[in-house]
Amino acid sequence: MSYKLTILGCSSAIPTVDKNPTAQLLNANERFFLIDCAEGTQVQLRKYKIKFQKISRIFISHLHGDHYFGLIGLISSMHLLGREKELHIYAHPELKKIIDIQLDIASTELCYPLFFHPITPDVDEVLFEDKKIKISTFPLNHGIDCNGFLFEEKLSPRKLLSDKVQEYNIPIDKLKEIKQGSDFITTDGIKIDNTEITKDNRTPDSYAFCSDTKYHEEIVDKIKNVTLLYHEATFMQDRSVRANETNHSTTIDAANIANLSSVKNLLIGHFSQRYQDKGLLLNEVRSIFDKSIVASEGLTIDFSDL
Amino acid sequence: MSYKLTILGCSSAIPTVDKNPTAQLLNANERFFLIDCAEGTQVQLRKYKIKFQKISRIFISHLHGDHYFGLIGLISSMHLLGREKELHIYAHPELKKIIDIQLDIASTELCYPLFFHPITPDVDEVLFEDKKIKISTFPLNHGIDCNGFLFEEKLSPRKLLSDKVQEYNIPIDKLKEIKQGSDFITTDGIKIDNTEITKDNRTPDSYAFCSDTKYHEEIVDKIKNVTLLYHEATFMQDRSVRANETNHSTTIDAANIANLSSVKNLLIGHFSQRYQDKGLLLNEVRSIFDKSIVASEGLTIDFSDL
Repeated sequence: MSYKLTILGCSSAIPTVDKNPTAQLLNANERFFLIDCAEGTQVQLRKYKIKFQKISRIFISHLHGDHYFGLIGLISSMHLLGREKELHIYAHPELKKIIDIQLDIASTELCYPLFFHPITPDVDEVLFEDKKIKISTFPLNHGIDCNGFLFEEKLSPRKLLSDKVQEYNIPIDKLKEIKQGSDFITTDGIKIDNTEITKDNRTPDSYAFCSDTKYHEEIVDKIKNVTLLYHEATFMQDRSVRANETNHSTTIDAANIANLSSVKNLLIGHFSQRYQDKGLLLNEVRSIFDKSIVASEGLTIDFSDL
Repeated sequence: MSYKLTILGCSSAIPTVDKNPTAQLLNANERFFLIDCAEGTQVQLRKYKIKFQKISRIFISHLHGDHYFGLIGLISSMHLLGREKELHIYAHPELKKIIDIQLDIASTELCYPLFFHPITPDVDEVLFEDKKIKISTFPLNHGIDCNGFLFEEKLSPRKLLSDKVQEYNIPIDKLKEIKQGSDFITTDGIKIDNTEITKDNRTPDSYAFCSDTKYHEEIVDKIKNVTLLYHEATFMQDRSVRANETNHSTTIDAANIANLSSVKNLLIGHFSQRYQDKGLLLNEVRSIFDKSIVASEGLTIDFSDL
């Protein structure tokens, strides 16, 4: 098991016949999180065979249309298809008004529970946490309230060796502490060293999503060492002035943030419509940060391959 | 010159990879009117090579999502692409709130003038009229405020014979009355009979759009004799109970309305996702009304061919 990220759209501003604005699906060990939801996202989910009723939580970075205009349609289709399970939405508070007014006007009472969790602008906060994952948010710098999201897998430090568990007949109620590193004492009082019955667990996966933002070093400490950083790169470096004016980043901005944060891998996206050849973007970003990937629609990144 | 109608979407409820909900583009002698605007309509316009900046007026029948969720994206894209010319929207008044809240939240000041014309529910009214066209609206019966639209071309009854205009050296200021049927008196006082200098003009085109509605005979007098009637037919006749419960029509309902209204041609659409074979719908509707057409995406109907 590991995280898998599918790109549903990675262009900026305007949907076209073959380009969709931002939307991503993170499969975090079979828990499905949608990040941003541009117009057409529900069709993109269908195109890439992702059952959208599986989505449990939706995260919207900010209220520019190319990041949320598809949300009301998705909410509505989930209803029309008879969803019963909860849906949680994390977004800036104004989005609730936009959703509510449209449901009210159509007299739609959703057939499933919809929970809206307002993001507090300008602060870091944990949005959701349980035994397996921690999801937090932090401010970006985009001229409008805009937030990044950090998904951190939780794994015990040690992984059980199942044959040893059987051999020593270790009771279930001891397994948790052994996975944390404890030794095991048999009924005869013999100490079995932890290293004999466990092995190192893999490094937990982590994913940071940063779109849209201008170059913003304040995020560096928050995304340190993540397995994969998605950072917008709307423009190439020759348009750095335009990037700054429009509160966006260049390839080099994204690469510099990746370097400073010591992330393992960088994924860039949110490309201006002007770029047909993504190879140019890739070359530029790799000149600073070698382990870079360029987003493309339908791309699925398995974190175990990184 | 004649009217041309392009179907951008004709399914009900939910967009899928190959089916789009309601949107149509009426080219009324090079004036472009968009009727309904489901999610994905801007991409459908691109797909069928219709320059959406040419659209001058948009008509939204009602505020169920499958008829308007694409509007805010289209408005926004027109802005991002630097539109300057006016856009007029005709819809029920609540739609203005939905548009305004989304523009306000993104601090978007549109770079073109947007005029919102609220439709008064439950009454017939003229929405726009000039020398060439009259556009009016009338209530449908759909359990929510829902309106049909009628587009009526205006033509003078007589068409000038240009060789005769030249031969008799008819001054420009006389042409208007001659096109209305007046004779021409030469400077020598000789009367030239109107039939010598004109011929019958063609019948003006007219288009009535009726979606969504249950069977509703009150519309019959309002759409009498139109060149083309679009009437929803969500279900086949075996689901007439379901149609009535959901405030929709069957193929036979649409055909009966077409018959009673003595329309020249009937176009059906807004099909439930259950129907893969549109031939069955066509057979059923033609059992009552022979001059029937089944909508399909990308279909363009040239009224001169009807």
